[in-house]
Amino acid sequence: MSESMVRFGMSLPGKLMERFDAHIEARGYGNRSEAIRDLIRRALVEEEIEVNEVVLGVLHILYDHSKRELTEKLTEIQHAHHEHIISSMHVHLDHVNCLEVIVIKGTPALIRKTADRMLAEKGVKHGKLYLTSDGKGLD
Amino acid sequence: MSESMVRFGMSLPGKLMERFDAHIEARGYGNRSEAIRDLIRRALVEEEIEVNEVVLGVLHILYDHSKRELTEKLTEIQHAHHEHIISSMHVHLDHVNCLEVIVIKGTPALIRKTADRMLAEKGVKHGKLYLTSDGKGLD
Amino acid sequence: MSESMVRFGMSLPGKLMERFDAHIEARGYGNRSEAIRDLIRRALVEEEIEVNEVVLGVLHILYDHSKRELTEKLTEIQHAHHEHIISSMHVHLDHVNCLEVIVIKGTPALIRKTADRMLAEKGVKHGKLYLTSDGKGLD
Amino acid sequence: MSESMVRFGMSLPGKLMERFDAHIEARGYGNRSEAIRDLIRRALVEEEIEVNEVVLGVLHILYDHSKRELTEKLTEIQHAHHEHIISSMHVHLDHVNCLEVIVIKGTPALIRKTADRMLAEKGVKHGKLYLTSDGKGLD
Repeated sequence: MSESMVRFGMSLPGKLMERFDAHIEARGYGNRSEAIRDLIRRALVEEEIEVNEVVLGVLHILYDHSKRELTEKLTEIQHAHHEHIISSMHVHLDHVNCLEVIVIKGTPALIRKTADRMLAEKGVKHGKLYLTSDGKGLD
Repeated sequence: MSESMVRFGMSLPGKLMERFDAHIEARGYGNRSEAIRDLIRRALVEEEIEVNEVVLGVLHILYDHSKRELTEKLTEIQHAHHEHIISSMHVHLDHVNCLEVIVIKGTPALIRKTADRMLAEKGVKHGKLYLTSDGKGLD
Repeated sequence: MSESMVRFGMSLPGKLMERFDAHIEARGYGNRSEAIRDLIRRALVEEEIEVNEVVLGVLHILYDHSKRELTEKLTEIQHAHHEHIISSMHVHLDHVNCLEVIVIKGTPALIRKTADRMLAEKGVKHGKLYLTSDGKGLD
Repeated sequence: MSESMVRFGMSLPGKLMERFDAHIEARGYGNRSEAIRDLIRRALVEEEIEVNEVVLGVLHILYDHSKRELTEKLTEIQHAHHEHIISSMHVHLDHVNCLEVIVIKGTPALIRKTADRMLAEKGVKHGKLYLTSDGKGLD
Protein backbone atom coordinates (compact mmCIF):
# COMPACT_ATOMS: atom_id res chain seq x y z
CA MET A 1 0.00 0.00 0.00
CA SER A 2 1.46 3.38 -1.00
CA GLU A 3 1.93 6.03 1.69
CA SER A 4 -0.79 8.19 0.20
CA MET A 5 -3.61 5.77 1.03
CA VAL A 6 -6.39 7.22 3.19
CA ARG A 7 -8.68 5.03 5.23
CA PHE A 8 -12.27 5.85 5.99
CA GLY A 9 -15.33 4.04 7.25
CA MET A 10 -18.57 3.56 5.41
CA SER A 11 -21.83 1.74 6.00
CA LEU A 12 -23.85 -0.56 3.81
CA PRO A 13 -27.18 -2.29 4.46
CA GLY A 14 -26.43 -5.90 5.40
CA LYS A 15 -28.27 -7.54 2.52
CA LEU A 16 -26.71 -5.21 -0.03
CA MET A 17 -23.28 -6.09 1.33
CA GLU A 18 -24.01 -9.81 0.96
CA ARG A 19 -25.04 -9.33 -2.66
CA PHE A 20 -22.05 -7.13 -3.40
CA ASP A 21 -19.63 -9.60 -1.81
CA ALA A 22 -21.04 -12.39 -3.99
CA HIS A 23 -20.81 -10.12 -7.02
CA ILE A 24 -17.17 -9.22 -6.52
CA GLU A 25 -16.18 -12.78 -5.71
CA ALA A 26 -17.73 -13.92 -8.99
CA ARG A 27 -15.75 -11.23 -10.80
CA GLY A 28 -12.51 -12.29 -9.13
CA TYR A 29 -11.83 -9.28 -6.93
CA GLY A 30 -9.47 -9.85 -4.03
CA ASN A 31 -11.32 -7.55 -1.65
CA ARG A 32 -14.13 -5.06 -1.27
CA SER A 33 -11.87 -1.99 -1.21
CA GLU A 34 -10.41 -2.79 -4.62
CA ALA A 35 -13.83 -3.38 -6.14
CA ILE A 36 -15.15 -0.09 -4.79
CA ARG A 37 -12.07 1.78 -6.04
CA ASP A 38 -12.86 0.47 -9.53
CA LEU A 39 -16.43 1.71 -9.30
CA ILE A 40 -15.18 5.12 -8.21
CA ARG A 41 -12.70 5.32 -11.09
CA ARG A 42 -15.42 4.40 -13.55
CA ALA A 43 -17.60 7.26 -12.31
CA LEU A 44 -14.68 9.68 -12.68
CA VAL A 45 -13.86 8.49 -16.20
CA GLU A 46 -17.46 9.02 -17.27
CA GLU A 47 -17.29 12.55 -15.90
CA GLU A 48 -14.03 13.29 -17.76
CA ILE A 49 -15.69 12.36 -21.02
CA GLU A 50 -18.80 14.44 -20.33
CA VAL A 51 -16.82 17.60 -19.64
CA ASN A 52 -14.74 17.13 -22.78
CA GLU A 53 -11.27 16.87 -21.28
CA VAL A 54 -8.47 15.24 -23.21
CA VAL A 55 -9.23 11.57 -23.22
CA LEU A 56 -8.40 8.43 -25.19
CA GLY A 57 -10.50 6.77 -27.83
CA VAL A 58 -10.34 3.06 -28.53
CA LEU A 59 -11.76 2.61 -32.01
CA HIS A 60 -12.28 -0.79 -33.56
CA ILE A 61 -13.20 -1.32 -37.18
CA LEU A 62 -14.10 -4.51 -39.02
CA TYR A 63 -13.24 -4.62 -42.70
CA ASP A 64 -12.43 -6.77 -45.70
CA HIS A 65 -8.68 -6.53 -46.26
CA SER A 66 -8.97 -7.95 -49.79
CA LYS A 67 -10.12 -4.50 -50.87
CA ARG A 68 -6.58 -3.24 -51.29
CA GLU A 69 -7.47 0.40 -51.72
CA LEU A 70 -9.27 0.34 -48.42
CA THR A 71 -6.13 -0.59 -46.48
CA GLU A 72 -4.29 2.26 -48.19
CA LYS A 73 -7.13 4.64 -47.52
CA LEU A 74 -7.22 3.75 -43.83
CA THR A 75 -3.45 4.14 -43.53
CA GLU A 76 -3.70 7.51 -45.25
CA ILE A 77 -6.36 8.75 -42.83
CA GLN A 78 -4.33 7.56 -39.88
CA HIS A 79 -1.25 9.40 -41.14
CA ALA A 80 -3.21 12.57 -41.75
CA HIS A 81 -4.11 12.47 -38.03
CA HIS A 82 -0.79 11.02 -36.87
CA GLU A 83 -0.41 13.55 -34.07
CA HIS A 84 -3.53 12.12 -32.44
CA ILE A 85 -3.25 8.48 -33.40
CA ILE A 86 -1.05 6.75 -30.88
CA SER A 87 -1.05 3.16 -32.02
CA SER A 88 -2.96 0.56 -33.95
CA MET A 89 -3.27 -3.22 -33.97
CA HIS A 90 -4.33 -5.42 -36.82
CA VAL A 91 -5.93 -8.84 -36.31
CA HIS A 92 -6.61 -11.33 -39.13
CA LEU A 93 -9.97 -12.85 -38.26
CA ASP A 94 -10.39 -15.12 -41.31
CA HIS A 95 -9.63 -15.08 -45.04
CA VAL A 96 -11.35 -11.79 -45.63
CA ASN A 97 -12.17 -10.16 -42.31
CA CYS A 98 -9.80 -7.94 -40.36
CA LEU A 99 -10.20 -6.24 -37.05
CA GLU A 100 -8.20 -3.09 -36.53
CA VAL A 101 -7.99 -1.37 -33.16
CA ILE A 102 -6.81 2.23 -33.21
CA VAL A 103 -5.95 4.29 -30.13
CA ILE A 104 -6.62 8.02 -30.53
CA LYS A 105 -5.86 10.86 -28.10
CA GLY A 106 -7.55 14.25 -27.92
CA THR A 107 -10.81 15.92 -26.98
CA PRO A 108 -13.92 13.77 -27.43
CA ALA A 109 -14.98 15.96 -30.39
CA LEU A 110 -11.67 15.53 -32.21
CA ILE A 111 -11.53 11.80 -31.53
CA ARG A 112 -15.08 11.35 -32.84
CA LYS A 113 -14.24 13.23 -36.03
CA THR A 114 -11.17 11.12 -36.73
CA ALA A 115 -13.06 7.90 -36.01
CA ASP A 116 -15.96 8.95 -38.22
CA ARG A 117 -13.66 9.32 -41.23
CA MET A 118 -12.54 5.70 -40.91
CA LEU A 119 -15.99 4.33 -40.11
CA ALA A 120 -17.41 6.03 -43.18
CA GLU A 121 -15.00 4.37 -45.62
CA LYS A 122 -16.65 2.00 -48.06
CA GLY A 123 -15.62 -1.54 -47.11
CA VAL A 124 -15.53 -0.83 -43.39
CA LYS A 125 -18.36 -3.12 -42.32
CA HIS A 126 -18.72 -2.13 -38.74
CA GLY A 127 -16.92 -0.44 -35.93
CA LYS A 128 -17.35 1.49 -32.77
CA LEU A 129 -15.53 4.15 -30.87
CA TYR A 130 -15.19 3.83 -27.13
CA LEU A 131 -13.99 6.85 -25.14
CA THR A 132 -11.93 6.27 -22.03
CA SER A 133 -9.47 8.02 -19.73
CA ASP A 134 -5.75 8.52 -20.32
CA GLY A 135 -5.16 7.21 -16.83
CA LYS A 136 -4.03 10.49 -15.26
CA GLY A 137 -5.48 11.18 -11.83
CA LEU A 138 -6.91 7.71 -11.42
CA ASP A 139 -4.32 6.33 -8.99
CA MET B 1 -30.22 4.51 9.57
CA SER B 2 -31.93 1.11 9.69
CA GLU B 3 -30.73 -1.51 12.18
CA SER B 4 -29.33 -3.68 9.42
CA MET B 5 -26.54 -1.28 8.42
CA VAL B 6 -23.04 -2.74 8.54
CA ARG B 7 -19.97 -0.57 8.88
CA PHE B 8 -16.61 -1.40 7.37
CA GLY B 9 -13.38 0.41 6.61
CA MET B 10 -11.86 0.89 3.21
CA SER B 11 -8.87 2.73 1.79
CA LEU B 12 -8.50 5.03 -1.17
CA PRO B 13 -5.42 6.78 -2.58
CA GLY B 14 -5.45 10.38 -1.33
CA LYS B 15 -5.68 12.04 -4.74
CA LEU B 16 -8.45 9.74 -5.90
CA MET B 17 -10.42 10.58 -2.80
CA GLU B 18 -10.03 14.29 -3.49
CA ARG B 19 -11.34 13.86 -7.02
CA PHE B 20 -14.20 11.65 -5.86
CA ASP B 21 -15.19 14.10 -3.14
CA ALA B 22 -15.32 16.91 -5.70
CA HIS B 23 -17.30 14.67 -8.04
CA ILE B 24 -19.96 13.75 -5.49
CA GLU B 25 -20.27 17.30 -4.23
CA ALA B 26 -20.93 18.48 -7.79
CA ARG B 27 -23.60 15.81 -8.12
CA GLY B 28 -25.23 16.84 -4.86
CA TYR B 29 -24.50 13.81 -2.69
CA GLY B 30 -24.70 14.38 1.05
CA ASN B 31 -21.83 12.05 1.89
CA ARG B 32 -19.32 9.55 0.52
CA SER B 33 -21.15 6.48 1.84
CA GLU B 34 -24.33 7.30 -0.05
CA ALA B 35 -22.44 7.92 -3.29
CA ILE B 36 -20.60 4.61 -2.99
CA ARG B 37 -23.82 2.74 -2.21
CA ASP B 38 -25.24 4.09 -5.47
CA LEU B 39 -22.22 2.85 -7.42
CA ILE B 40 -22.62 -0.58 -5.82
CA ARG B 41 -26.31 -0.76 -6.68
CA ARG B 42 -25.56 0.19 -10.27
CA ALA B 43 -23.08 -2.68 -10.58
CA LEU B 44 -25.67 -5.09 -9.17
CA VAL B 45 -28.40 -3.89 -11.51
CA GLU B 46 -26.12 -4.41 -14.50
CA GLU B 47 -25.49 -7.95 -13.33
CA GLU B 48 -29.21 -8.68 -12.89
CA ILE B 49 -29.80 -7.72 -16.50
CA GLU B 50 -26.88 -9.80 -17.79
CA VAL B 51 -28.11 -12.96 -16.09
CA ASN B 52 -31.65 -12.46 -17.35
CA GLU B 53 -33.55 -12.22 -14.09
CA VAL B 54 -36.95 -10.58 -13.97
CA VAL B 55 -36.32 -6.89 -14.40
CA LEU B 56 -38.13 -3.74 -15.48
CA GLY B 57 -38.00 -2.06 -18.85
CA VAL B 58 -38.52 1.66 -19.30
CA LEU B 59 -39.42 2.14 -22.95
CA HIS B 60 -39.94 5.52 -24.49
CA ILE B 61 -41.33 6.09 -27.95
CA LEU B 62 -41.68 9.27 -29.97
CA TYR B 63 -44.55 9.41 -32.43
CA ASP B 64 -46.96 11.57 -34.36
CA HIS B 65 -50.34 11.36 -32.60
CA SER B 66 -52.16 12.79 -35.60
CA LYS B 67 -51.92 9.38 -37.18
CA ARG B 68 -55.01 8.14 -35.43
CA GLU B 69 -54.57 4.50 -36.30
CA LEU B 70 -51.14 4.50 -34.70
CA THR B 71 -52.51 5.42 -31.29
CA GLU B 72 -55.03 2.60 -31.57
CA LYS B 73 -52.35 0.19 -32.72
CA LEU B 74 -50.09 1.06 -29.79
CA THR B 75 -52.97 0.69 -27.33
CA GLU B 76 -53.79 -2.67 -28.86
CA ILE B 77 -50.22 -3.93 -28.50
CA GLN B 78 -50.12 -2.75 -24.90
CA HIS B 79 -53.35 -4.56 -24.12
CA ALA B 80 -52.14 -7.74 -25.77
CA HIS B 81 -49.22 -7.66 -23.31
CA HIS B 82 -51.20 -6.23 -20.40
CA GLU B 83 -49.86 -8.78 -17.93
CA HIS B 84 -46.36 -7.34 -18.45
CA ILE B 85 -47.15 -3.70 -19.03
CA ILE B 86 -47.42 -1.98 -15.69
CA SER B 87 -48.07 1.61 -16.60
CA SER B 88 -47.66 4.21 -19.29
CA MET B 89 -47.40 7.99 -19.48
CA HIS B 90 -48.24 10.20 -22.40
CA VAL B 91 -46.64 13.63 -22.95
CA HIS B 92 -47.75 16.11 -25.62
CA LEU B 93 -44.52 17.63 -26.91
CA ASP B 94 -45.97 19.89 -29.59
CA HIS B 95 -48.78 19.90 -32.16
CA VAL B 96 -47.77 16.60 -33.66
CA ASN B 97 -45.16 14.94 -31.47
CA CYS B 98 -45.92 12.72 -28.50
CA LEU B 99 -43.64 10.99 -26.07
CA GLU B 100 -44.97 7.86 -24.46
CA VAL B 101 -43.13 6.13 -21.63
CA ILE B 102 -44.14 2.53 -20.97
CA VAL B 103 -43.00 0.46 -18.00
CA ILE B 104 -42.74 -3.28 -18.72
CA LYS B 105 -41.92 -6.13 -16.32
CA GLY B 106 -40.47 -9.54 -17.19
CA THR B 107 -37.30 -11.22 -18.38
CA PRO B 108 -35.05 -9.06 -20.58
CA ALA B 109 -35.96 -11.24 -23.59
CA LEU B 110 -39.69 -10.80 -23.11
CA ILE B 111 -39.38 -7.08 -22.45
CA ARG B 112 -37.30 -6.61 -25.60
CA LYS B 113 -39.87 -8.48 -27.69
CA THR B 114 -42.75 -6.36 -26.42
CA ALA B 115 -40.79 -3.15 -26.95
CA ASP B 116 -39.75 -4.20 -30.46
CA ARG B 117 -43.37 -4.55 -31.53
CA MET B 118 -44.07 -0.94 -30.60
CA LEU B 119 -40.82 0.44 -31.98
CA ALA B 120 -41.49 -1.26 -35.31
CA GLU B 121 -44.87 0.42 -35.85
CA LYS B 122 -44.98 2.81 -38.78
CA GLY B 123 -45.23 6.33 -37.40
CA VAL B 124 -43.12 5.62 -34.34
CA LYS B 125 -40.19 7.89 -35.15
CA HIS B 126 -37.80 6.87 -32.47
CA GLY B 127 -37.57 5.17 -29.16
CA LYS B 128 -35.37 3.23 -26.86
CA LEU B 129 -35.74 0.56 -24.25
CA TYR B 130 -33.79 0.87 -21.04
CA LEU B 131 -33.60 -2.17 -18.75
CA THR B 132 -33.41 -1.62 -15.03
CA SER B 133 -34.03 -3.38 -11.72
CA ASP B 134 -37.39 -3.85 -10.00
CA GLY B 135 -35.77 -2.59 -6.83
CA LYS B 136 -35.80 -5.88 -4.92
CA GLY B 137 -32.60 -6.60 -3.02
CA LEU B 138 -31.19 -3.12 -3.52
CA ASP B 139 -31.87 -1.77 -0.02
CA MET C 1 -47.77 8.33 -47.70
CA SER C 2 -47.42 12.10 -47.34
CA GLU C 3 -46.74 14.24 -50.40
CA SER C 4 -43.23 14.99 -49.22
CA MET C 5 -41.93 11.43 -49.56
CA VAL C 6 -38.91 11.04 -51.79
CA ARG C 7 -38.02 7.74 -53.40
CA PHE C 8 -34.49 6.64 -54.15
CA GLY C 9 -32.72 3.43 -54.99
CA MET C 10 -30.03 1.76 -52.96
CA SER C 11 -28.07 -1.47 -53.15
CA LEU C 12 -27.28 -4.08 -50.57
CA PRO C 13 -25.20 -7.25 -50.82
CA GLY C 14 -27.62 -10.18 -51.26
CA LYS C 15 -26.68 -12.03 -48.08
CA LEU C 16 -26.85 -8.89 -45.97
CA MET C 17 -30.31 -8.22 -47.31
CA GLU C 18 -31.42 -11.74 -46.36
CA ARG C 19 -30.15 -11.26 -42.82
CA PHE C 20 -31.71 -7.83 -42.56
CA ASP C 21 -35.07 -9.06 -43.84
CA ALA C 22 -35.06 -11.82 -41.21
CA HIS C 23 -34.08 -9.29 -38.57
CA ILE C 24 -36.87 -6.84 -39.36
CA GLU C 25 -39.46 -9.59 -39.64
CA ALA C 26 -38.50 -10.83 -36.18
CA ARG C 27 -38.88 -7.28 -34.86
CA GLY C 28 -42.29 -6.91 -36.46
CA TYR C 29 -41.56 -4.30 -39.13
CA GLY C 30 -44.03 -4.13 -41.99
CA ASN C 31 -41.42 -3.36 -44.61
CA ARG C 32 -37.77 -2.60 -45.27
CA SER C 33 -38.29 1.14 -45.86
CA GLU C 34 -39.82 1.65 -42.44
CA ALA C 35 -37.02 -0.27 -40.72
CA ILE C 36 -34.36 1.77 -42.50
CA ARG C 37 -36.11 5.03 -41.66
CA ASP C 38 -35.93 4.05 -38.00
CA LEU C 39 -32.19 3.40 -38.26
CA ILE C 40 -31.72 6.80 -39.91
CA ARG C 41 -33.70 8.58 -37.20
CA ARG C 42 -31.65 6.85 -34.51
CA ALA C 43 -28.42 8.11 -36.08
CA LEU C 44 -29.82 11.65 -36.20
CA VAL C 45 -30.97 11.54 -32.58
CA GLU C 46 -27.51 10.45 -31.46
CA GLU C 47 -26.05 13.40 -33.35
CA GLU C 48 -28.50 15.86 -31.75
CA ILE C 49 -27.35 14.75 -28.33
CA GLU C 50 -23.66 14.97 -29.21
CA VAL C 51 -23.94 18.54 -30.43
CA ASN C 52 -25.88 19.62 -27.35
CA GLU C 53 -29.11 20.81 -28.93
CA VAL C 54 -32.28 21.01 -26.88
CA VAL C 55 -33.35 17.45 -26.29
CA LEU C 56 -35.49 15.43 -23.92
CA GLY C 57 -34.34 13.39 -20.98
CA VAL C 58 -36.21 10.35 -19.73
CA LEU C 59 -35.04 9.80 -16.17
CA HIS C 60 -36.16 6.87 -14.10
CA ILE C 61 -35.45 6.50 -10.41
CA LEU C 62 -36.11 3.61 -8.06
CA TYR C 63 -36.77 4.45 -4.44
CA ASP C 64 -38.41 3.45 -1.21
CA HIS C 65 -41.58 5.51 -0.82
CA SER C 66 -41.87 4.68 2.87
CA LYS C 67 -39.20 7.28 3.50
CA ARG C 68 -41.68 10.11 3.55
CA GLU C 69 -39.15 12.91 3.48
CA LEU C 70 -37.70 11.50 0.28
CA THR C 71 -40.97 11.90 -1.62
CA GLU C 72 -41.17 15.50 -0.44
CA LYS C 73 -37.55 16.11 -1.34
CA LEU C 74 -38.06 14.76 -4.85
CA THR C 75 -41.20 16.83 -5.35
CA GLU C 76 -39.32 19.89 -4.16
CA ILE C 77 -36.49 19.33 -6.62
CA GLN C 78 -38.94 18.84 -9.44
CA HIS C 79 -40.73 22.06 -8.59
CA ALA C 80 -37.47 23.96 -8.40
CA HIS C 81 -36.88 22.90 -11.99
CA HIS C 82 -40.52 23.04 -13.07
CA GLU C 83 -39.76 25.00 -16.23
CA HIS C 84 -37.76 22.01 -17.51
CA ILE C 85 -39.70 19.14 -16.03
CA ILE C 86 -42.55 18.31 -18.34
CA SER C 87 -44.20 15.37 -16.67
CA SER C 88 -43.67 12.49 -14.30
CA MET C 89 -45.20 9.07 -13.70
CA HIS C 90 -45.21 7.10 -10.50
CA VAL C 91 -45.44 3.30 -10.41
CA HIS C 92 -45.92 1.25 -7.21
CA LEU C 93 -43.72 -1.80 -7.71
CA ASP C 94 -44.30 -3.48 -4.35
CA HIS C 95 -44.83 -2.55 -0.71
CA VAL C 96 -41.72 -0.42 -0.54
CA ASN C 97 -40.36 0.12 -4.03
CA CYS C 98 -41.47 2.86 -6.40
CA LEU C 99 -40.42 3.65 -9.91
CA GLU C 100 -40.72 7.25 -10.99
CA VAL C 101 -40.20 8.32 -14.57
CA ILE C 102 -39.55 12.01 -15.12
CA VAL C 103 -39.42 13.73 -18.51
CA ILE C 104 -37.07 16.72 -18.66
CA LYS C 105 -36.47 19.18 -21.51
CA GLY C 106 -33.38 21.30 -22.13
CA THR C 107 -29.76 21.06 -23.17
CA PRO C 108 -28.03 17.78 -22.27
CA ALA C 109 -25.95 19.62 -19.65
CA LEU C 110 -28.99 21.10 -17.91
CA ILE C 111 -30.91 17.83 -18.04
CA ARG C 112 -27.96 15.94 -16.52
CA LYS C 113 -27.69 18.46 -13.69
CA THR C 114 -31.36 18.18 -12.81
CA ALA C 115 -31.23 14.40 -12.96
CA ASP C 116 -28.10 14.26 -10.81
CA ARG C 117 -29.83 16.13 -8.00
CA MET C 118 -32.55 13.49 -7.80
CA LEU C 119 -30.20 10.53 -8.25
CA ALA C 120 -28.02 11.78 -5.42
CA GLU C 121 -30.84 11.87 -2.85
CA LYS C 122 -30.43 9.39 -0.01
CA GLY C 123 -33.05 6.67 -0.47
CA VAL C 124 -32.94 6.76 -4.26
CA LYS C 125 -31.57 3.27 -4.86
CA HIS C 126 -30.91 3.42 -8.53
CA GLY C 127 -31.80 5.31 -11.63
CA LYS C 128 -30.64 6.31 -15.03
CA LEU C 129 -31.05 9.21 -17.38
CA TYR C 130 -31.64 8.52 -21.03
CA LEU C 131 -31.33 11.40 -23.50
CA THR C 132 -33.52 11.41 -26.57
CA SER C 133 -34.93 13.73 -29.20
CA ASP C 134 -37.95 16.03 -28.83
CA GLY C 135 -39.19 14.65 -32.13
CA LYS C 136 -38.69 17.80 -34.19
CA GLY C 137 -37.22 17.19 -37.64
CA LEU C 138 -37.64 13.44 -37.47
CA ASP C 139 -40.67 13.14 -39.75
CA MET D 1 -19.64 -3.51 -56.81
CA SER D 2 -19.70 -7.29 -56.36
CA GLU D 3 -22.09 -9.40 -58.47
CA SER D 4 -24.20 -10.23 -55.44
CA MET D 5 -25.48 -6.70 -54.93
CA VAL D 6 -29.24 -6.31 -54.95
CA ARG D 7 -30.91 -3.01 -55.72
CA PHE D 8 -34.20 -1.91 -54.24
CA GLY D 9 -36.14 1.31 -53.87
CA MET D 10 -37.12 2.97 -50.67
CA SER D 11 -38.81 6.19 -49.65
CA LEU D 12 -37.91 8.82 -47.10
CA PRO D 13 -39.73 12.00 -46.07
CA GLY D 14 -38.04 14.92 -47.86
CA LYS D 15 -36.92 16.77 -44.73
CA LEU D 16 -35.55 13.63 -43.13
CA MET D 17 -33.54 12.96 -46.27
CA GLU D 18 -32.09 16.47 -46.15
CA ARG D 19 -31.00 16.00 -42.55
CA PHE D 20 -29.60 12.56 -43.24
CA ASP D 21 -27.64 13.80 -46.25
CA ALA D 22 -26.09 16.56 -44.14
CA HIS D 23 -25.33 14.02 -41.42
CA ILE D 24 -23.52 11.58 -43.71
CA GLU D 25 -21.62 14.33 -45.47
CA ALA D 26 -20.33 15.56 -42.11
CA ARG D 27 -19.25 12.03 -41.29
CA GLY D 28 -17.45 11.65 -44.59
CA TYR D 29 -19.62 9.05 -46.30
CA GLY D 30 -19.33 8.89 -50.06
CA ASN D 31 -23.01 8.11 -50.64
CA ARG D 32 -26.33 7.34 -49.00
CA SER D 33 -26.24 3.61 -49.80
CA GLU D 34 -22.98 3.10 -47.94
CA ALA D 35 -24.21 5.01 -44.91
CA ILE D 36 -27.42 2.99 -44.77
CA ARG D 37 -25.51 -0.28 -45.13
CA ASP D 38 -23.49 0.69 -42.06
CA LEU D 39 -26.65 1.34 -40.07
CA ILE D 40 -28.00 -2.05 -41.12
CA ARG D 41 -24.81 -3.83 -40.10
CA ARG D 42 -24.88 -2.12 -36.73
CA ALA D 43 -28.41 -3.37 -36.09
CA LEU D 44 -27.34 -6.92 -37.02
CA VAL D 45 -24.27 -6.82 -34.79
CA GLU D 46 -26.40 -5.73 -31.84
CA GLU D 47 -28.71 -8.67 -32.50
CA GLU D 48 -25.78 -11.14 -32.67
CA ILE D 49 -24.66 -10.05 -29.23
CA GLU D 50 -28.16 -10.26 -27.74
CA VAL D 51 -28.66 -13.85 -28.91
CA ASN D 52 -25.27 -14.90 -27.59
CA GLU D 53 -23.61 -16.07 -30.80
CA VAL D 54 -19.84 -16.28 -31.04
CA VAL D 55 -18.63 -12.73 -31.19
CA LEU D 56 -15.50 -10.70 -30.52
CA GLY D 57 -14.67 -8.69 -27.46
CA VAL D 58 -12.43 -5.64 -27.55
CA LEU D 59 -11.26 -5.12 -23.99
CA HIS D 60 -9.16 -2.17 -22.97
CA ILE D 61 -7.53 -1.83 -19.57
CA LEU D 62 -5.62 1.07 -18.06
CA TYR D 63 -2.94 0.21 -15.54
CA ASP D 64 0.30 1.23 -13.88
CA HIS D 65 3.07 -0.83 -15.45
CA SER D 66 5.50 -0.02 -12.64
CA LYS D 67 3.69 -2.62 -10.58
CA ARG D 68 5.75 -5.43 -12.01
CA GLU D 69 3.68 -8.26 -10.60
CA LEU D 70 0.63 -6.86 -12.32
CA THR D 71 2.14 -7.22 -15.79
CA GLU D 72 3.02 -10.82 -14.98
CA LYS D 73 -0.43 -11.47 -13.58
CA LEU D 74 -2.12 -10.09 -16.69
CA THR D 75 0.13 -12.14 -18.97
CA GLU D 76 -0.69 -15.21 -16.91
CA ILE D 77 -4.43 -14.67 -17.21
CA GLN D 78 -4.12 -14.13 -20.95
CA HIS D 79 -2.16 -17.36 -21.34
CA ALA D 80 -4.66 -19.31 -19.27
CA HIS D 81 -7.27 -18.21 -21.81
CA HIS D 82 -4.99 -18.32 -24.84
CA GLU D 83 -7.48 -20.25 -26.95
CA HIS D 84 -9.86 -17.29 -26.76
CA ILE D 85 -7.41 -14.42 -26.70
CA ILE D 86 -6.49 -13.55 -30.24
CA SER D 87 -4.17 -10.62 -29.87
CA SER D 88 -3.18 -7.77 -27.62
CA MET D 89 -1.61 -4.34 -28.01
CA HIS D 90 0.28 -2.37 -25.44
CA VAL D 91 0.50 1.44 -25.47
CA HIS D 92 2.77 3.48 -23.18
CA LEU D 93 0.71 6.51 -22.26
CA ASP D 94 3.18 8.20 -19.91
CA HIS D 95 5.76 7.26 -17.27
CA VAL D 96 3.37 5.11 -15.32
CA ASN D 97 0.20 4.57 -17.30
CA CYS D 98 -0.31 1.84 -19.87
CA LEU D 99 -3.23 1.06 -22.10
CA GLU D 100 -3.63 -2.53 -23.15
CA VAL D 101 -6.17 -3.60 -25.76
CA ILE D 102 -7.01 -7.30 -25.82
CA VAL D 103 -9.12 -9.01 -28.49
CA ILE D 104 -11.10 -12.01 -27.21
CA LYS D 105 -13.26 -14.44 -29.19
CA GLY D 106 -16.14 -16.59 -27.88
CA THR D 107 -19.66 -16.36 -26.57
CA PRO D 108 -20.53 -13.10 -24.80
CA ALA D 109 -20.64 -14.97 -21.46
CA LEU D 110 -17.15 -16.42 -21.88
CA ILE D 111 -15.70 -13.13 -23.10
CA ARG D 112 -17.19 -11.28 -20.12
CA LYS D 113 -15.73 -13.81 -17.69
CA THR D 114 -12.23 -13.53 -19.15
CA ALA D 115 -12.43 -9.74 -19.18
CA ASP D 116 -13.69 -9.63 -15.60
CA ARG D 117 -10.61 -11.49 -14.35
CA MET D 118 -8.32 -8.83 -15.79
CA LEU D 119 -10.49 -5.89 -14.75
CA ALA D 120 -10.57 -7.19 -11.17
CA GLU D 121 -6.77 -7.25 -10.77
CA LYS D 122 -5.44 -4.80 -8.24
CA GLY D 123 -3.59 -2.07 -10.14
CA VAL D 124 -5.91 -2.13 -13.12
CA LYS D 125 -7.38 1.35 -12.78
CA HIS D 126 -10.07 1.22 -15.35
CA GLY D 127 -11.20 -0.67 -18.38
CA LYS D 128 -14.16 -1.64 -20.43
CA LEU D 129 -15.21 -4.53 -22.59
CA TYR D 130 -16.90 -3.82 -25.88
CA LEU D 131 -18.60 -6.69 -27.70
CA THR D 132 -18.64 -6.68 -31.48
CA SER D 133 -19.08 -9.00 -34.44
CA ASP D 134 -16.43 -11.27 -35.93
CA GLY D 135 -17.35 -9.89 -39.32
CA LYS D 136 -18.98 -13.02 -40.71
CA GLY D 137 -22.20 -12.42 -42.60
CA LEU D 138 -21.78 -8.66 -42.68
CA ASP D 139 -20.66 -8.33 -46.31
